[in-house]
Amino acid sequence: MFTYQIIIEYLGTSFVGWQFQKNGLSIQEVLEKALSKFLKHKVKVIGSGRTDSGVHANGQSAHFKIKNKIKDKNTFINSINFFLKRHAISIISIKKKSKKFHARHSATKRIYKYLIVNRRSSLVIEKNKAWHIKKKLNIKIMKKGAEILLGTHDFSTFRSSSCQAKSPIKTLSKAKIDKKKNKIVLTFVSKSFLQQQVRSMVGSLKYLGEGKWSLKDFKKAFLSKKRSMCAPTAPPYGLYLYKVKY
Amino acid sequence: MFTYQIIIEYLGTSFVGWQFQKNGLSIQEVLEKALSKFLKHKVKVIGSGRTDSGVHANGQSAHFKIKNKIKDKNTFINSINFFLKRHAISIISIKKKSKKFHARHSATKRIYKYLIVNRRSSLVIEKNKAWHIKKKLNIKIMKKGAEILLGTHDFSTFRSSSCQAKSPIKTLSKAKIDKKKNKIVLTFVSKSFLQQQVRSMVGSLKYLGEGKWSLKDFKKAFLSKKRSMCAPTAPPYGLYLYKVKY
Repeated sequence: MFTYQIIIEYLGTSFVGWQFQKNGLSIQEVLEKALSKFLKHKVKVIGSGRTDSGVHANGQSAHFKIKNKIKDKNTFINSINFFLKRHAISIISIKKKSKKFHARHSATKRIYKYLIVNRRSSLVIEKNKAWHIKKKLNIKIMKKGAEILLGTHDFSTFRSSSCQAKSPIKTLSKAKIDKKKNKIVLTFVSKSFLQQQVRSMVGSLKYLGEGKWSLKDFKKAFLSKKRSMCAPTAPPYGLYLYKVKY
Repeated sequence: MFTYQIIIEYLGTSFVGWQFQKNGLSIQEVLEKALSKFLKHKVKVIGSGRTDSGVHANGQSAHFKIKNKIKDKNTFINSINFFLKRHAISIISIKKKSKKFHARHSATKRIYKYLIVNRRSSLVIEKNKAWHIKKKLNIKIMKKGAEILLGTHDFSTFRSSSCQAKSPIKTLSKAKIDKKKNKIVLTFVSKSFLQQQVRSMVGSLKYLGEGKWSLKDFKKAFLSKKRSMCAPTAPPYGLYLYKVKY
């Protein structure tokens, strides 16, 4: 058996999310079907992690195991992407890996980006691809909030009630906010994240930027470790799984 | 009568272009209908220039004249954008101008950007929003080509056969190429452009980047002043009318 890693780009808009689900089309299902069709046998695709319905990816990472070596990677990518044509999914690259490689377990860093467009007018170019916030956000205070999140903490406040992780303790190695004109990009890096952690953090940073919360309120919510203290979770369509490192 | 300037963002994908046409829906038509509906009388909208079918705008500029002053600009923008909701058009801002202001005649600079995504895999996030070029482009030589275009020249090579401008002589004050990972952005600035000038220049710069043309070939085509010497015109969906200055 040979192990291959693929990097995948997708728009989550019309999917139920990465993970296979009975109630709708998932990215995993579409990928498995395309690969199985091309390779003429059943292929199981393991992702680096789930992304929710509506969440996008520039660089989701996944692996699969097959009996025969892939001879021509370019032909492989072109063929699979041809099968994927109807869907907003594209395989960016493929790489042969050691037997031990596991897209989820071997990952050492996950990079998420969250895009906010901060303006009055409705979105056109970034529709379904960013969170549209009309009220002018205070970036300075949001940056201070992001700094508080850096490091190793109990992130229970920013954890979905359905999260199945054993521990709420995670280490954020980056929490950066960049603004260019009315576009605000929030970048978060960690070995792993709790369920809806990024969207929960973004929702709370937005409360801070709007002035609904002071820095003290933000800190209090964070330190409370209570989900009920979290601001409303940011919508999925601004979130991108940017890259997974190994 | 009061003169107002509006800045408009749109995705050109589903329109026949900016200008009113009998064979399909134009951005101008949709805007005029929305404004007329809101203001309860017929309004004529004059744009800074036409954009072709499929061409986008971050900052198209237009003006219109109305009898009554607009009291609350924010309410105005919100209401018009509500009428525009079904379409990929959004009014970004509105400004009262002097009687003499004319969106086309008063313009002193037009800034266009052209987006290329240079990679093997089919586009997902930038689908319909960029030119997908699979062959690796040589940016260095493309930059040299762009430099040749700078300044005042006869741009007949890069002029659509249906162009109605009196003179083919234009002055390019900027022709810049930036690359970030696999995204290439070409920026062109001029007081005005010939019909399909940007797309023609991009098409020829792409020939250069692919190695189909040497710098000598590129120069020769440019200096020939013959449309027949131009490389195939770049597709509309990579082009953005970025900003109009006055």
